Amino acid sequence: MDALSKLKKRSAEINDLNSIMALLQWDQEVLMPSRAAENRAEQFATLSGIIHKKEVSTTTGKLLQEAEGHSDEGSAIDQGLVRVMRRSYDQNTKLPEEFVRESAKLTSQALQTWVAARQQSDFSLFEPVLQKLVTMALQKAEYLGYAGEPYDALLDLHEEGLTTATVDTMFADLRQPLIAMVNRAREHHRPRLVVTPPFALAAQKDFADQVLLKIGFDFERGRQDKSAHPFTTSLGHHDRRVTNRYKPESVEYIFSALHEGGHALYEQGIAEEIARTHLDTGVSLGIHESQSRLWENIIGRSKPFWENFYPELQKAFPEQLEPMPVADFVAAINVVQPGLIRVEADEVTYNLHVLIRFEIERDLFRGSLKVHDLPGIWNQKYKDYLGVDVDSDANGVLQDIHWSHGSFGYFPTYSIGNLAAAQIWAAYCRHDPDFTTTLRSGNLQKIRQWLTERIYRHGSVYPPDVLLKKVTGEGLNSSYFKAYLQDKYR
Amino acid sequence: MDALSKLKKRSAEINDLNSIMALLQWDQEVLMPSRAAENRAEQFATLSGIIHKKEVSTTTGKLLQEAEGHSDEGSAIDQGLVRVMRRSYDQNTKLPEEFVRESAKLTSQALQTWVAARQQSDFSLFEPVLQKLVTMALQKAEYLGYAGEPYDALLDLHEEGLTTATVDTMFADLRQPLIAMVNRAREHHRPRLVVTPPFALAAQKDFADQVLLKIGFDFERGRQDKSAHPFTTSLGHHDRRVTNRYKPESVEYIFSALHEGGHALYEQGIAEEIARTHLDTGVSLGIHESQSRLWENIIGRSKPFWENFYPELQKAFPEQLEPMPVADFVAAINVVQPGLIRVEADEVTYNLHVLIRFEIERDLFRGSLKVHDLPGIWNQKYKDYLGVDVDSDANGVLQDIHWSHGSFGYFPTYSIGNLAAAQIWAAYCRHDPDFTTTLRSGNLQKIRQWLTERIYRHGSVYPPDVLLKKVTGEGLNSSYFKAYLQDKYR
Repeated sequence: MDALSKLKKRSAEINDLNSIMALLQWDQEVLMPSRAAENRAEQFATLSGIIHKKEVSTTTGKLLQEAEGHSDEGSAIDQGLVRVMRRSYDQNTKLPEEFVRESAKLTSQALQTWVAARQQSDFSLFEPVLQKLVTMALQKAEYLGYAGEPYDALLDLHEEGLTTATVDTMFADLRQPLIAMVNRAREHHRPRLVVTPPFALAAQKDFADQVLLKIGFDFERGRQDKSAHPFTTSLGHHDRRVTNRYKPESVEYIFSALHEGGHALYEQGIAEEIARTHLDTGVSLGIHESQSRLWENIIGRSKPFWENFYPELQKAFPEQLEPMPVADFVAAINVVQPGLIRVEADEVTYNLHVLIRFEIERDLFRGSLKVHDLPGIWNQKYKDYLGVDVDSDANGVLQDIHWSHGSFGYFPTYSIGNLAAAQIWAAYCRHDPDFTTTLRSGNLQKIRQWLTERIYRHGSVYPPDVLLKKVTGEGLNSSYFKAYLQDKYR
Repeated sequence: MDALSKLKKRSAEINDLNSIMALLQWDQEVLMPSRAAENRAEQFATLSGIIHKKEVSTTTGKLLQEAEGHSDEGSAIDQGLVRVMRRSYDQNTKLPEEFVRESAKLTSQALQTWVAARQQSDFSLFEPVLQKLVTMALQKAEYLGYAGEPYDALLDLHEEGLTTATVDTMFADLRQPLIAMVNRAREHHRPRLVVTPPFALAAQKDFADQVLLKIGFDFERGRQDKSAHPFTTSLGHHDRRVTNRYKPESVEYIFSALHEGGHALYEQGIAEEIARTHLDTGVSLGIHESQSRLWENIIGRSKPFWENFYPELQKAFPEQLEPMPVADFVAAINVVQPGLIRVEADEVTYNLHVLIRFEIERDLFRGSLKVHDLPGIWNQKYKDYLGVDVDSDANGVLQDIHWSHGSFGYFPTYSIGNLAAAQIWAAYCRHDPDFTTTLRSGNLQKIRQWLTERIYRHGSVYPPDVLLKKVTGEGLNSSYFKAYLQDKYR
């Protein structure tokens, strides 16, 4: 066997084990009995130790070197596999074991501290450990290496090739137009959807499955279950699962189904050819999010989509929705309303939440902002950008779990997702100028097939920026998102 | 670290990985999307390869040797761990790799052939591959070694220390009395339970949970779900799950809940002290089955148990059961009726089904019976022992899947379970002469605690025959089972 064949064999094994890890996680979130948490943690530790050893073995290193010597000759898939395995190998080997151990200890401490600080809504309790987390992340950046500034290394961890400069450019064009739109929305405030009587939970679950069927989710190759927080996971090439949650007074589960369903369509659309390899997953967080946002927002909150689908929703909940015309429903699910909490934000304000986190992280890692000053800066930016007064640290600087995980450079991928979604949708609309008719006819298969052909089937074969250029003809460009919002909310 | 501590660490890892295997299996039976079967098979193969390597590594062998040198000094737990790990090591290392590979190939073929032969109800289709399976099992016995005859090695695989001679003795006392009871039952035939209208499935599921609660199953440390065939599995010390199935016209699920619940009480009762080791499971198939049968039959089909519990069942299904007095219900769930199918058999006839299989296997491996003659012998024995005419190979010699797995020597553990259950119950009744009052009061905790103290908490610390002696004061003795049946059906 040559080096590449050996790498493929190794990739298959690691892929199997990662799928098993995903099952352990899925079961923990969906079904596991309450007292089994410690057993499960031990199982995670044992299995992830085995995976880590396989990832960093000197054999893998040698095989990679050998394969890279011949990589020009290989197919796109072979080149992709070597690229992705190299990336994973480097990320796993550049950090000294001692550093990884210390980091794990610190983040486990940090998580508990953050939970307590958030409960008491007191940032000062979290401040010392956050300081350590920032120092640790800076050290991590040094180990991983970067071309421009340390924050680049952290961005690249979450989105291959992403730099601070790119994110700066992305937001430069967006900041003012978004703020202007928020101000306009505040002047023309509309109420959010309120329905009586409450929706029956069993009927919500049934309809959530209908939503997935509508967009083409394959239930022979996946499931939808209930969990505290919706997520999508891959337990194998033919086993991509989503979860959802249900509240009696809300239609949020419909958009969760569309969001997680978008992630799952991406995973279900990956070519069989690259099953059981490192390539058998969406290429990056940003591109993945572009697909969840495309189905959730661009398609799933559009009027023509609901002109087709609304009668089915009304049939499922006649008491609540038969009195409500489709136009009112669509207006209600598109209300813009500045608020404090990112995860509850609408399409317009969402990216401002991300922008605030990005600016803060960037300045923290440049050293121009001190951890101690975070709450003040946070509250100021919320006032400046969203026009809201932060009432507490819990609803402010302490709201997100990410930092307590030692995770910095993650948030921008959310905005990349929103922007790439609009850019990809614009490319689709050039291909299908009659897209409104397509949506109104409910023929979503046409859209899914185009996305599968251009994006899904490739899995991680091409780096995210290369893929985006192949699909849209250019690199990330925020003008499409701006135009999409302006068109929608004018 | 000394050898024993190192063995414990290894045992913990293997235990974690086996629990993960159990989750893969559980998910496959309960939830997995249909098209994921091939992915799951790959995951099984990868993970079981890793477990196998850990089990057979030369390090494990050396550590075992070293620990065995000092094993007289250790606690009962330490001695038990070395004994069980040695057994697993030997079973895994005595078979040459080439033989294991060939066996796997043959059984995978055999399974398909058995399915086809059973569908066409034609033993001759299965005969050639069954001949090969028998040859393979004989070869296996030679690799594993035995004191008496080759079949001993196969029995020992399923029940530590079990020999052909022991099983012969066990059945010698039972054969005639059982046949006599069957004949009497045929003369006093009563109909099986028939209810109208059918039971609602959702209400059955709820009541199945009530049954588990009644006997003390801990839902914080386990679950009950639906699957095609009921089973019990361990996904960790605090995660023991059972499954059940539901049919609108049947109360069978109640006895499945009691049966699997009995297995699960055993597993849930194991001491925390031996969590995450090779000892953290019931010691043998026979002892395990003794607990499922004790709860299912001896307790769960007894009149005093239902005098306490029947009102709750009636409350759950008033339309069907309010008109039926408890005595009629108890009579209906204890009907004795000779039939062709083992898995549908009652307490009296069940062991005759096992006896037939035992005699056939024993004679096959002694060479005094040819594979070709199996259907004739099978049908003759069913006529002689159970008085029934076998109408087809599908309902006769082809009914069980076990042989197609290459599994011989398994069936006797079912009867050991029945006999040990009666023997253990007799010991309990000496401890609690007022046991009828205990059952009638619904205070099953008293029984469960006694069993936990004597049996459950020890897991696999003591070999099955040693454990049975500790609990009952003697080795396996069929007179208790005989007396139990005679008392019940006189």
